[in-house]
Amino acid sequence: MSIIKNDTIIKAYQGEETDYTPAWFMRQAGRSQPEYRALKEKYSLFEITHQPELCAYVTRLPVENYGTDAAILYKDIMSPLPYIGVDVEIKSGIGPVIHNPIRNLQDVEKLGEINPVSDVSYVLDTIRLLTEEQLEVPLIGFSGAPFTLASYMIEGGPSKNYSRTKALMYREPETWFALMDKLSDMIISYVDAQVEAGAKAIQIFDSWVGSLNAEDYRLFIKPVMKRIFSELRRHEVPLITFGVGARHLLMEWNDLPVDVIGLDWRTSITEAREMGITKVVQGNLDPAILLADWQTIEQRTKQILDQGMDSGKYVFNLGHGVTPDIEPATLKKLTELVHNYSKEK
Amino acid sequence: MSIIKNDTIIKAYQGEETDYTPAWFMRQAGRSQPEYRALKEKYSLFEITHQPELCAYVTRLPVENYGTDAAILYKDIMSPLPYIGVDVEIKSGIGPVIHNPIRNLQDVEKLGEINPVSDVSYVLDTIRLLTEEQLEVPLIGFSGAPFTLASYMIEGGPSKNYSRTKALMYREPETWFALMDKLSDMIISYVDAQVEAGAKAIQIFDSWVGSLNAEDYRLFIKPVMKRIFSELRRHEVPLITFGVGARHLLMEWNDLPVDVIGLDWRTSITEAREMGITKVVQGNLDPAILLADWQTIEQRTKQILDQGMDSGKYVFNLGHGVTPDIEPATLKKLTELVHNYSKEK
Repeated sequence: MSIIKNDTIIKAYQGEETDYTPAWFMRQAGRSQPEYRALKEKYSLFEITHQPELCAYVTRLPVENYGTDAAILYKDIMSPLPYIGVDVEIKSGIGPVIHNPIRNLQDVEKLGEINPVSDVSYVLDTIRLLTEEQLEVPLIGFSGAPFTLASYMIEGGPSKNYSRTKALMYREPETWFALMDKLSDMIISYVDAQVEAGAKAIQIFDSWVGSLNAEDYRLFIKPVMKRIFSELRRHEVPLITFGVGARHLLMEWNDLPVDVIGLDWRTSITEAREMGITKVVQGNLDPAILLADWQTIEQRTKQILDQGMDSGKYVFNLGHGVTPDIEPATLKKLTELVHNYSKEK
Repeated sequence: MSIIKNDTIIKAYQGEETDYTPAWFMRQAGRSQPEYRALKEKYSLFEITHQPELCAYVTRLPVENYGTDAAILYKDIMSPLPYIGVDVEIKSGIGPVIHNPIRNLQDVEKLGEINPVSDVSYVLDTIRLLTEEQLEVPLIGFSGAPFTLASYMIEGGPSKNYSRTKALMYREPETWFALMDKLSDMIISYVDAQVEAGAKAIQIFDSWVGSLNAEDYRLFIKPVMKRIFSELRRHEVPLITFGVGARHLLMEWNDLPVDVIGLDWRTSITEAREMGITKVVQGNLDPAILLADWQTIEQRTKQILDQGMDSGKYVFNLGHGVTPDIEPATLKKLTELVHNYSKEK
């Protein structure tokens, strides 16, 4: 019972030609928005994400304010972890802190399974509210990827070097793959439920996987990602992968059963095509550019759009998430620029 | 009045063939060593770095314990900044914190010049002690690069996104280049003095420059680095550049008047050569691999050595600094492996 009026982005994700280049922005909802900051004065993060009306409001705000071609569910990548037994706390100024970090196989075996219908009904209600009543553009669902989630679970919080994570991976491959299995099961169930509730595309955020060298990626992650995306293929929704600092892994991603590869700002669209990337690409304006004067923003955006339109199979986005210091007015102008410039060309 | 008995690494840095592959490890001196940790119970970091005898002891320990082919001066990249007026404090668990961050041109204009002979005589005394009396291998001197130093000075401390730094760069190019000039002057004077005191090679650490996209690197950093390296060329010592996550900038580095390009673990030596890197390359074992079993360490090290010896113009190192959790015994075995394997081949 979808009420979508504009599915341009889905067509673009499927590799079809579209009338213009669709756009959305990673972390488009949240602290960069005055409406969100006002809400945070009355409600905690937990309340916002656990109350479907509030969460739907935050999720759809950027579509209304900026005219983006998609909404993305407002949610932290850590949000499904408590249901499999991970004691996670989001500490302001630090990030996710895990009170029961994974140290060995026994810790992994203690982890349970997620049952989305009973565990995250509030997420599914949010999705239904958005897709059945509120949104005229597609809703993108998402999940963190196993490496990125595991890095928090093993380090106990954010990390610079991922030393503990890599040490566990090298020293205890059995423990590593047991953990990957548990997380893959969780991700698949969680995403299945999001799609069944109405999500029209899925982005898997493997934010920190770029810290691995290519050989370790092939040995310890690629088979895991292959399984996840292969299973998610049963849904007829586009699958997107993204990570930062992963230029050296892009050709590995191109082998995965995904539809779309998200580029950070370190690899231009032209370079990605020269490397041999054949999938749809999404990206990749450096979010920091949005702190510059409009002339610079316009010039850099047009450069990226020119490359994207020349390459084809392209969706506009930033190279990483919107930072809180970026002005909403800039994001509105940016969406208009992407739409108008790509329509004219 | 050098007492060097083994200058293999200098020959390798100059692109000459050597009897074996020389090796040293970034951050080889410091918290990974029990002798250092014992010293830290009696002395503060300030005392260690400001007392030539102590600092020389810490600097030469890895050469004595592991048999590395070079020592690198034990020092923080922030250490020259106080002499130009930067109020920097190294906070344990956080990193450098700057109490007078740069906000505008006036802040930059307030910065002074370093006079190494009067300001950092203790550094120069350390170098002389090491090179005239203690070390039989070359001492590598070093400095942080302008982008990396500026990022701390502008953000006020370590940063995830370098938003403030990039915003200043975009919005106030005049302020940016004034700051780059001040820092370049400081770096050149500081390095000049290190070489005059006895340093036999210089590594410029541009640790965080990989956060820039290639166009910004070309606009805001490349001319700055060209000037620094061109001026340092007056000394007959090899010049090395290094940064992490900078795969997309390697070909820019290849244009600079440097002798050696340091690779992190994300770009293999073979890939660097395929890209067109013609300089001597240094690297690039992922330091986290040193937390694995010896069989894995040996296999990965031999892989890198095979690539390095095939490519030629190669010096072994890690892809980033030694982390405190790495065992000294592993570093000793690693040096032996590099030496023996490359001698046999």
